[in-house]
Amino acid sequence: MKTLFTLLIGAMTLMGPALAQTGGVPASTNIPGQKYPQILPDNRVVFRVKAPDARKLQIDLMKKYDMVKDTSGFWTVTTEPVGEGFHYYSLIADGIAICDPASQTFYGMGRMASGIDIPDKDMDYYQPKNVPHGQVRSVNYYSDMTRAWRRANVYTPPGYDENPKKRYPVLYLQHGSGEDETGWPTQGKMDFILDNLIAEGKATPMIVVMERGYATDPTRPVSTTNGMAPNVFPELLVKEVIPMIDKSFRTLTDRDSRAMAGLSMGGFQTFQTTMTNLDKFAYIGGFSGAGRLQPGADVKQLYDGALADADAFNRKMKLVYVSIGTKEPERMYAGVKGFHEALDKAGIRHVYYESPGTLHEWQTWRRSLRQYASLIFKK
Amino acid sequence: MKTLFTLLIGAMTLMGPALAQTGGVPASTNIPGQKYPQILPDNRVVFRVKAPDARKLQIDLMKKYDMVKDTSGFWTVTTEPVGEGFHYYSLIADGIAICDPASQTFYGMGRMASGIDIPDKDMDYYQPKNVPHGQVRSVNYYSDMTRAWRRANVYTPPGYDENPKKRYPVLYLQHGSGEDETGWPTQGKMDFILDNLIAEGKATPMIVVMERGYATDPTRPVSTTNGMAPNVFPELLVKEVIPMIDKSFRTLTDRDSRAMAGLSMGGFQTFQTTMTNLDKFAYIGGFSGAGRLQPGADVKQLYDGALADADAFNRKMKLVYVSIGTKEPERMYAGVKGFHEALDKAGIRHVYYESPGTLHEWQTWRRSLRQYASLIFKK
Repeated sequence: MKTLFTLLIGAMTLMGPALAQTGGVPASTNIPGQKYPQILPDNRVVFRVKAPDARKLQIDLMKKYDMVKDTSGFWTVTTEPVGEGFHYYSLIADGIAICDPASQTFYGMGRMASGIDIPDKDMDYYQPKNVPHGQVRSVNYYSDMTRAWRRANVYTPPGYDENPKKRYPVLYLQHGSGEDETGWPTQGKMDFILDNLIAEGKATPMIVVMERGYATDPTRPVSTTNGMAPNVFPELLVKEVIPMIDKSFRTLTDRDSRAMAGLSMGGFQTFQTTMTNLDKFAYIGGFSGAGRLQPGADVKQLYDGALADADAFNRKMKLVYVSIGTKEPERMYAGVKGFHEALDKAGIRHVYYESPGTLHEWQTWRRSLRQYASLIFKK
Repeated sequence: MKTLFTLLIGAMTLMGPALAQTGGVPASTNIPGQKYPQILPDNRVVFRVKAPDARKLQIDLMKKYDMVKDTSGFWTVTTEPVGEGFHYYSLIADGIAICDPASQTFYGMGRMASGIDIPDKDMDYYQPKNVPHGQVRSVNYYSDMTRAWRRANVYTPPGYDENPKKRYPVLYLQHGSGEDETGWPTQGKMDFILDNLIAEGKATPMIVVMERGYATDPTRPVSTTNGMAPNVFPELLVKEVIPMIDKSFRTLTDRDSRAMAGLSMGGFQTFQTTMTNLDKFAYIGGFSGAGRLQPGADVKQLYDGALADADAFNRKMKLVYVSIGTKEPERMYAGVKGFHEALDKAGIRHVYYESPGTLHEWQTWRRSLRQYASLIFKK
């Protein structure tokens, strides 16, 4: 047993990040000890996979790159420069999009996917630092509505345990389509973003609840148009998640102490949830996804007329926040920007942010969370 | 945006577990909504992967099974009956062992791997139930010894937040080789095992700390024999992890309130750590991995003679626990059983458990944790 044991320990502990022959460094998203993928100084990425028997391998990272096999059975490719931030990617082998065995995996694209995080010049705000740290807690609970056990990830701020009488405001923070409750604490680095903002005094210490944005009620009929069960997550959030969180954590339960935000699908869900429950939320955030507005339509018609009286709405809501990356697909960019312009036209006070140079990806959403979290729960 | 959004939501929410044509049910370890793999009533497993362009696909689950392609591009195979409990498995495409896109992934085998959990007749003890639940908390901290940020997963028992003056004993619980700090809370289902034991009054409410069992000190030379950096995890645990946990959580800090256990490599690490720090631990557990003993050697020689005076050792230690699955590889079975027999011969009081019919796998370790956790911290 000793030999096996020693070998395995060794394999796990041998390699730290180091400059290799390529002049690059192993990505932070690699399995510990894996030297590839490597990020070069100009943000090109070198991928390397051992597969002596493969006929054809590709890397799919924004675009598809053919890998080339050397005589020792390793396939390699160097990409074009890749934008900063976190990107999902796939290895394509035998026509199947699969995970690169050298990468950690992340729930995205409706499956476990490989990911690579390209350092950003302005990445300081999501790095772990020598400041007090919160905790991300996994909470299991039974949902009557879905008749299933569910899991929420809950960030508690630094000091939560040390101040057992203190109560905190709560942000409900949702992932995008094809992702789940692990997205924000893993890909989004929300814990480090909050820890750093709180340490700098830029954000109010808060609890952040991250749930799985999919829920079906087995008693309700499937859609007659597409045969699918309706997603009742917005209703679940209000009827079950909020009461469970208010029972399990020391929350402030007034509406001025409750916010919601989400990215892409989570942004739509945020507007869907909050605009129909204005008595429960005082802050709304949509990152690359906000209210749904058909071209030429009027925001005053949306959500049963919740936005019809701009003055009343502006008095009631403490923050409406809408953001988009400037390099997002045109349809998404136009949709969110159009919603912002329609809010302007209707006199709805809001903050609109364009993240420079970022795609429909986590770098847009990390930046948005950094802004949004610094704007909410200010007395 | 609406069409994309609706499609993606639909794809995520469409399918719950249901009997399909095979007479099987989707595995609990599948990506939500994925119908395959399916487990048949006799524990054979049906795998199904879409890969119209593939030449050859295999499933590697204990043994390799060739998949067969149908005219619609789906490859399928039905395995032999698979033993109960959690198993890592791979899809082999183009000669590379990869993850099945339909499976959740688990850190094992030194990489992210697919896994399948076959229901056990005696699985009740690791199922979520309507009992008070603890939380698994992700804790980030900076390690001076390794000069790196590390993460520990920490289980806090039900009632931890509601009793802010209560202090708890601590179990340090380690994973095996090729796994990490996610092994016990994910594959091991340690949270449900503890929740259920505590609810039944069979275990004392305790904090459970799960760390990453690999650590290198950049100031120490690599081994002259194998060129590898030594794994200083046992030293890290005592010098940094325990003080960090005692500072961050409401722990009882006397040795009678501190236990350690681990599986396989983690079992060896447990003996290595505790036997050289008997002033800090009163309970020792090795699941499929315990003390290291060469054939014919004497336990009295081990660990600087810590076991030489059996009476003194028996008075000092509250529990030594050693377990093994009856179907583990012969070398492992003989090694652990031999250690048990040597302890017997030396007059060292201990509990020895053989898990009937289980391999060097998580079912052995879930059962061992269930026993071990019910034996420690009894006054």
